[in-house]
Parts: sequence; structure tokens; C-alpha cells
Amino acid sequence: MEHMIRTDLALEARESFPEDDIEIRGVELIEEYDEENRIRVSTVIIKDERGAKAMQKPIGTYITIEAPELSEADEDYHQPVADVIAKNLIKLAGDLKKDEVLIVGLGNREVTPDALGPQVVDNLFITRHLIREYGNEFRIRNKLGNVSAISPGVMAQTGMETSEIIKGIVEETHPKLIIVIDALASRSINRLNTTVQLTDTGISPGSGVGNNRKALNEESPGTKVIALGVPTVVDAVTIVADTLSQYMEKTGFSENEINQFISEIRNQHMHNMFVTPKNIDEAVKRISYTVSEALNSCFAQTV
Amino acid sequence: MEHMIRTDLALEARESFPEDDIEIRGVELIEEYDEENRIRVSTVIIKDERGAKAMQKPIGTYITIEAPELSEADEDYHQPVADVIAKNLIKLAGDLKKDEVLIVGLGNREVTPDALGPQVVDNLFITRHLIREYGNEFRIRNKLGNVSAISPGVMAQTGMETSEIIKGIVEETHPKLIIVIDALASRSINRLNTTVQLTDTGISPGSGVGNNRKALNEESPGTKVIALGVPTVVDAVTIVADTLSQYMEKTGFSENEINQFISEIRNQHMHNMFVTPKNIDEAVKRISYTVSEALNSCFAQTV
Amino acid sequence: MEHMIRTDLALEARESFPEDDIEIRGVELIEEYDEENRIRVSTVIIKDERGAKAMQKPIGTYITIEAPELSEADEDYHQPVADVIAKNLIKLAGDLKKDEVLIVGLGNREVTPDALGPQVVDNLFITRHLIREYGNEFRIRNKLGNVSAISPGVMAQTGMETSEIIKGIVEETHPKLIIVIDALASRSINRLNTTVQLTDTGISPGSGVGNNRKALNEESPGTKVIALGVPTVVDAVTIVADTLSQYMEKTGFSENEINQFISEIRNQHMHNMFVTPKNIDEAVKRISYTVSEALNSCFAQTV
Amino acid sequence: MEHMIRTDLALEARESFPEDDIEIRGVELIEEYDEENRIRVSTVIIKDERGAKAMQKPIGTYITIEAPELSEADEDYHQPVADVIAKNLIKLAGDLKKDEVLIVGLGNREVTPDALGPQVVDNLFITRHLIREYGNEFRIRNKLGNVSAISPGVMAQTGMETSEIIKGIVEETHPKLIIVIDALASRSINRLNTTVQLTDTGISPGSGVGNNRKALNEESPGTKVIALGVPTVVDAVTIVADTLSQYMEKTGFSENEINQFISEIRNQHMHNMFVTPKNIDEAVKRISYTVSEALNSCFAQTV
Repeated sequence: MEHMIRTDLALEARESFPEDDIEIRGVELIEEYDEENRIRVSTVIIKDERGAKAMQKPIGTYITIEAPELSEADEDYHQPVADVIAKNLIKLAGDLKKDEVLIVGLGNREVTPDALGPQVVDNLFITRHLIREYGNEFRIRNKLGNVSAISPGVMAQTGMETSEIIKGIVEETHPKLIIVIDALASRSINRLNTTVQLTDTGISPGSGVGNNRKALNEESPGTKVIALGVPTVVDAVTIVADTLSQYMEKTGFSENEINQFISEIRNQHMHNMFVTPKNIDEAVKRISYTVSEALNSCFAQTV
Repeated sequence: MEHMIRTDLALEARESFPEDDIEIRGVELIEEYDEENRIRVSTVIIKDERGAKAMQKPIGTYITIEAPELSEADEDYHQPVADVIAKNLIKLAGDLKKDEVLIVGLGNREVTPDALGPQVVDNLFITRHLIREYGNEFRIRNKLGNVSAISPGVMAQTGMETSEIIKGIVEETHPKLIIVIDALASRSINRLNTTVQLTDTGISPGSGVGNNRKALNEESPGTKVIALGVPTVVDAVTIVADTLSQYMEKTGFSENEINQFISEIRNQHMHNMFVTPKNIDEAVKRISYTVSEALNSCFAQTV
Repeated sequence: MEHMIRTDLALEARESFPEDDIEIRGVELIEEYDEENRIRVSTVIIKDERGAKAMQKPIGTYITIEAPELSEADEDYHQPVADVIAKNLIKLAGDLKKDEVLIVGLGNREVTPDALGPQVVDNLFITRHLIREYGNEFRIRNKLGNVSAISPGVMAQTGMETSEIIKGIVEETHPKLIIVIDALASRSINRLNTTVQLTDTGISPGSGVGNNRKALNEESPGTKVIALGVPTVVDAVTIVADTLSQYMEKTGFSENEINQFISEIRNQHMHNMFVTPKNIDEAVKRISYTVSEALNSCFAQTV
Repeated sequence: MEHMIRTDLALEARESFPEDDIEIRGVELIEEYDEENRIRVSTVIIKDERGAKAMQKPIGTYITIEAPELSEADEDYHQPVADVIAKNLIKLAGDLKKDEVLIVGLGNREVTPDALGPQVVDNLFITRHLIREYGNEFRIRNKLGNVSAISPGVMAQTGMETSEIIKGIVEETHPKLIIVIDALASRSINRLNTTVQLTDTGISPGSGVGNNRKALNEESPGTKVIALGVPTVVDAVTIVADTLSQYMEKTGFSENEINQFISEIRNQHMHNMFVTPKNIDEAVKRISYTVSEALNSCFAQTV
């Protein structure tokens, strides 16, 4: 059933293998756990084409940060999570951290679970124009990084592929590193608003809320692209299909029968539907604060 | 399985009876269909306690307007739908139409499918303060109705029951008619953003997005309450349970077995989740225009 | 020209006396200055009717906190300012701090300088409904205060006096202390977004952005009212009149001539205009964070 | 004092000439008046360098539509104004009307009087992606124009010049016509929210709310640019300087003395301040509806 999986999370792609304990060749998995803060960091490195094929994801590094209280109101928890995100962002960014960075908030500001990207951008400390106006002296004195940002909106709002917009801006402003923030679709309800995924592979067409993304990666705008995603929705077909197939397997149906039933569901108007929690507004607000704090500490300040 | 149904729509409650073609005693159903505009109006009148028990809804009139293009961009369709809503609102309002009307936009402005009420209120023509400032002469000359409105927010934002807030305001400002606008939960995906329900029974605790409503009806603030609701979400448990039970029935499971399985789903973190379409922002925006136009033509103008 | 002054700040009312150094009878002034954080706290106590008449403000305590960097991006400055606001709020609240508190965000969410109140409320930690649901045990274990809140909107949006709405809610929910947050009009551009005024006298009709406030104080809803205001606008007539009269005084015109000229200005469409800085969005966003942090630390936590 | 004038309106630039009745060479003025709807259309054509120098505006056509009730709630007035805007847009667009059009909403969504551009874009009917997905057949059958749009935000939000962003997008998506929507600064309070200016000269650095615009015209992105602007603010220095100099002239001061005094004002923190009406939220909302209706009828439909 792998071909049915609608997930943007590398970790979930990996979990879906039935023989979970056997190492997939070409894929490396490293796990760390911070017990005090209950933060788990799983790094999946897809090393070659074999791994890429098995995982159905491009070659690269996928870091998943699981923080069960990510979206809760606890102020004290907020800072350690932001620190872990920042630390792992720096791992992926390397020396580009100090260079010109463009941060892109993907998604639709008007649809709550898809507003994560725009809300993160709203809270960023933007410096590129200051440096251009006041010069390098000013930059050094204030220990500023060079950050620009944009929330381009989604195709239904602009009539343009987001990748067209970003490529155009990149050609004009020449950032050395692009950070793309996006709301993702996970397969499991448990991952919603508790997980941050970082990758250095850019974005490939996926099943996020908007669903109409063209690739945005090193080849296409010609600049390194790091994607930071947080699952905020589950695809409605996925949730129904998962529950159902879990049940059907129990009761002894063949995979064929299960798949056929799932195709039927897909045709019942459910294919453009998503599932999200009732308190999604608070979750997105809190997570966007934490993420923007991580980004500000990484890129807006050079210390 | 009726006790599992999560729907705010009287029409759906009625449909869930297995013997659909047999008349339920104490319940009357009138149907009209406007072929040109593809608008169907179904009026369910619950006449007595027997009907109320059968339908699990209070005694009163429930008007359901089904307009398949309600949320689409077609400007020409917008006006006839607004007219049908207005005509049916007037049926329920009677002579109170000309009196002081308080319009309440329930729901959470920050959660897109729950923002219908606040967005309707944003587009209302508010006149009460003008009449108080410029007097009755001014009112007559400009043919104004007397409209006040509020979007109180949801309990997670205020810490108060919406019914407490409304009762307090009613006691202070003495409207003769309250119109409550709310986003509803339907059972079926097909009803989402295509249906308007009007009732003169006020609001009883339901399964809307917010889910924490105390009753708001004639007894409680002591004023006639008309509720106008539009289903914008389906409860996630409902959608999974419906799909599943539909399947299980086909394959010969007992109702007992089905119900047990559904309880399991309810416990799998799915009980605070809702399902909504990806373009919910456009749908809510358009529907709220149509509804506020209907309300403005009903209550802000006396002609 | 005192009768021409459009200011909501007690400090400015006092400053407008020509003989500034002479003590006004019935009015006491205490000043503190925190040099490290550049925060000045001026407490004006209007002790009796004589003072009230001289200051044209009701009897009570007016605390003005001047913090020049209040609206700037400096994270490190944010906390000491929030602490000073909290400390002075507690002075005015006394033992009521631990009781049921209703926080009201006045103003129009859609007009940036007037959105301060609603934005503060958006960031509050609301607890009243939690305590009602989970009981006193829960409250004590989590050291929670009892906070409810509302942003009722302005009269042009609701058709109702804000005081009507608040009175109704107070009668229904019985808070022991009301904190009213509002954007104010100052006389001087220098005070904009750098000043917080706290008073225990409630709100009297003033010249804020909305300008249509009825009194809201201990007498009217029958509960202690503390007002927290931040000047975000200057009235356009005031700014023109002040500049002009300053000039005219220099060049030897009589007060009569000056006043006549100012009346002319008032009639030139300028009476419904306000002046505000171009970066008012950032200023209001930052100040609202600081204020809501002060309120959360005062009232949402009992430690 | 011409060099002191802060206005984005060609009409006001022209009015500032003392010898108003004498024809400026190189400049042509045509006036039309629709008495029934009280709409005045003034067309200023700057024909050559001489006219450009006199008017301090580039060569081109400037159409000013004055509609005193532009921002009022009257539904019946809304349509004729939209029609006049559309008619004059078509005059400037010529055959490009049927070609690919990019509509840019300049300004800061978070500052009410500067939100006009973004709010217009929010109400546009976007078609480019539909045509790309469903093909030319679909386009012809539905009589669609080809419209894309973006609200890039202001430099303080993005760190980039808006012109950089637009140039990049234009190079990537190749529109044949760009329509730029912007909130303007007028000199006179009477023009606020009552005037629409259309030009085919693009945008040159001006004194709008944001104030940090680089040129955006035919030369720079290499595509025809039509600018549609509505004055929603007056610069605070301008309003004070105008009132003051009007007074000083009356009382016999020299231009030198006046200019000196005005420089002083400019230094008194007033240079980053703007003046706007208290009901600016309603004005911007209504005007943006009217403007987006004009744009939709011009460009989204080919009939």
C-alpha cells in the first residue's frame, strides 16, 4: 500500500515498511533523545539512489524533531525546542548560515493549518534592507545576518506556481541559501503539531494542504534550499483509508480488496479534504513563534 | 447507530431514519425546488414532543436551503440565493423583522471554517447607533431597520460561555429578535458549503467546530432566537465511522461489532478533529457575503 | 487653550499648566527613574475635587510609565518593561489580583493604531473556563488566576455602546476586577508608542481613535475598573493647533486670535483625522506582546 | 514651495501652480463631469519634457476620477464608479487588455490605509493557473482573461525592494501588462478616499505610506505598467506646513520665513507620520471592492 501513502514526512515513509527493524540499504538512521525536554531527533540520511527509491524521497538529509508539547502554551518548553531546531538548521546550512538568506513562507494565510509559513515570516527579524541602507559597518557593529523573506501566497491566490515566483526573486536578489517554511500533511494524527522536519533536499511535489507545489530545490532556483515543515493536517482519504485498512487487515481481507475500497473513497468527494484539530489556531500560532525564534537566532544574528 | 451521528442539520437527522419514506409522526416535511437556480428548500416542522423525540431536535421549524453553487464564484448565482435566504428568514421572523434585531456571529475568527459567523457580521450594515444618535425621523427618512451585532469569540478565547455573553448584552440592550449565525457540522461531505439551515428554535448544544455551546433560545435570553447555520465541517470520527460502517454493513457485520469499532476510533485522538475542504477560505468568504446580503436586505432596510 | 487640549494622558494634562513648577493643590506627583532600563514612572494622585477640577480628570491614581524603546525590536528590553507594568498594575489592583478578572480589549481591530486592545486580548492566557470545567483543585495545583476576556469591537461595528456590552457581561459573569486596555490619543508625537498609562478611575469619555466611549468605571458596572492605555495616535487638529499656536505665540498673537484660527482648522474636515507613525503595525504588535505578558504574569498565575 | 509638496497626485501637482488658469505648455487637461453620479474625470496629458519638468512627473497620461461617495456604503453608487474606472483603465491598456495581465497589490496589509493594494488583490478573480491547467478551449468557452496577481508586502517586511520582487516575477512569468495598485499620499484631506488616479507611466519614487519605492515602469521590468492609486493618507508634515503657510501668507510673512519654519517642523519627529480618517477601515474595504470589481470586469472577462 505504499503507493497510497500521503505523507510529507520521511520518518513516516520509513515507518511504513513492514519489516521495520531491518535496515534499508542506502538509508541511515540516527536517533537522539533529550529526556528532560522530551525532544526526540531522528536523522534519516538517504545516501544513494537505492535509498532514494526505497524511501521514495530524494537523496539528502531528513531531520525529524518530535516535541510532544510543541504547540502547548508552556513558555519554558518553547525555548529548548527553538534551540534544537536552530542547532539542526545550522547543521544543514553549514557556512551558508552567515551568507544572504531568503526565507519563504509557503501556504495560504487564510486557511488556518496552512498559515504556518506566512505566520513564521510575520515574526522574522528582516535585515537585508537595513544592511543595504546602512552598510557593512552597521552590519558588523550590530552583528546582523542578512535576511530577506516573502510569503508569496498559493496558486489559487496568485495564478502562478510558487516556484516561478521564488525563482524570479532569486534571480533578482541572489540569496545564497533559501529556507522554505511549509505546513505538511502527515499520515498520523499523532504527529500533527508535534513534529518539525528539516531537509536539505528542497521541496518536491507533495500532499500538503495546497497540494500544487512544483519542485523547489538546488537545481531549480540554483541555490541551496532547506525545507522546514510541520505537519498540521492529515489528508482525509489517508485517515479513512488507514483506519479502514487497519481494520480490514485484521479481518482477513486481501490487499487487492482493500485497495479497491480505498479508490472508491477517493472518488467520494474526499480527495480535496483535510483533517485538522479544532484548536489549530493556537497550535499554528505557538509553533510559528517557536520556528521564527529558531530562524531569528540562526540567521538574523551572527553571534 | 443514530446515537453516534454528529450532525447539526435537521435534514440529516431525518435522513438517518432507515424507513425514510414513511412519515414520522409529529413531523411535517415540505419541499420546493427552483429549477432555474437549482435551489431546493426543505421545511421540516417538528410539531410536538413525539416529533421532537424522533428527530432529537426541539419543536420548531427547520428550513434547509440547498444551493450546490453557494460557495462558487458565480456573481449571478449569488443574488437569487441571498433572496431565498431573505424570504425564508422573513417567514421565521414575522413582524419582528421591523423591530430591534441583534445579529450574533458565533465561532472563532481564527479557524477558517469556524469564521463564518464573524465574517458575516463584518459585512453587516449596522444601524442601531445611527438611529440612537440621529433619531426616528432619520430612521424613517432612510428607511432603516434597527440592527446591532457582535462576534463574541469562542470560550477558549473569552473564558466565558457565549450564552453568558449574549444574555448579558440582551439584558442591557433589549433586542426583540436575535439572529445567531454559526458554522455547523454536517454528517455528509456533500452538504459542506452548499446548505443553509434556518430554525426558530435557537441553538442547542451541538457538534459544531467549537463544540462548547450552551443553549441559546427563547427561554434563555427571553427573546426570540433564529439560528442561521451553514455546515462547513464534518466531524472526523463521523466521516471515518460512516465510511467504515457503510463498508461493514456491506460485508455482514453486526451493529454491535460496528459500534465497538467506532468507539475505538473515537479514542484514537480523532475526537477533536474536523474535516474541511482545502478551499474553505474562498467558500467561507463567498457564503458570508451572500448571508450578510440576505441579512442586510431583511433587517437593515425596512422596504 | 486648555479647553482645546485633546489628550487622554493625565501627565500631559498636568504639563499643560503654564506654571508647571508650582504644585497644583489636591494633586500629588511622585517620580521614579530606572536609569539602566531608561524607564520613568510618574504617579499622579488626584486627591480631591479641587485636584480633579484642575486636572479635568476624576479623583484617583494615574501612573505613567515612559519607556522610550517600548515599541522597538529589542527582546532584552521587553521583559523589564513588562515587569514594571505588572508591578504597577498590582499596586492598583491590590487583593483583587487573585480574584476573578475580566480583561477588555477596547478598540477596532481593523484600524492599526486602534487594534492594541484586541491584540493584547489575543495573547492572553484565558483560564476562567478551565477552572469552571476542572474545579478548584486544578486551579490550585496549576497556580492559576481566574481570567476572562473580550474584544467587543467599536460602536460602528456593533451599533452598541461598549459600556452597554461590558455592563451586560459583568452582570452575567460577576468579575471582581475589570482591566480595560485601550489605545489613547496623546498631545505630543514624542509620547506615541513610548508610554503606558495606568489608572484606577476607569474610562471617561475621551478622544481616543474611536472617540465614542461612554464612561466605564466603578459606579457604572459596579466593579473596580483599572484602565491601561497606550497613546498610539495624536488628534490631527491637536497637532496642527499645537504647532500653529506655538508659532503664533512666538510672533506675538493674542490667545483670542489663536483660538479663532484653531476653530477654523477644526472645521476644515480635520476633526475626524488622526496622526500616527508609518511603522504603527510593528509598534502595536510589540507593545501588545509586552502588555499581554504583564497581564499574564499578574493575573493568570497566582505565584 | 513646490519643492515641499508631498503629493502623489498629478492633479494636485498641477493645482499648486499659482497661475492656475494659464495653460502650462506641454501639458493638456481634459475634463468630463457625470452630473447624475457626481463623478468628475480629469485627464492630464504630459506631452513632452517641458511638461514633465513643469509638472515634476514623467511624460504620460494621468487620469483622475473624483467620486465624492467612493468610500460610502451606498451600493447603487458602487457600480457606476467601477464602470468609470474600468472604462478609463481600458483606455490606457488598449489591446493589452486581452493579454496576460499581472496585478500587483503594493502596500502593507497590516497598516489600514496602506492595505488597499493587498485588499484589492484579495478580491480579484485569478485565472492564469486555470488556463494553464485546462487549456485555451476552456479559456474561450468561459470567456476568461488571463490574470495573475501578487501582494509582495513592503520593504520592512521583505528586506527587498518591491521593484526587485516584481522584476523577478515578470522575468519568470512574462506578463504583457502590469497593473500596480497602491495607496497614495495626497496633499489635501478632501481628496482622501474620494479619488482614483490612473497613469500609464508606472510608479516613480513617491511619498506614499511606505515611501520606499523604486521606480517600476516600462523601462525597468520591460513591460507596460499602469498604476492605479487612491490617496488614503496625507503626510503629517504636509498638513501642518500647508495650514501654517496658508496662515503665514495671510499675515504677510516671506516665503523664506515660511520655508524655514517648515524645515523645523520636519525635524520635530513628524517626518514619519501620516494623517488618515478614523473610519479608514471601512473606506479601504469599500474602495477595494469597487476597484477589484473594475479590474475583474476589465481583465478577468474578455466580453
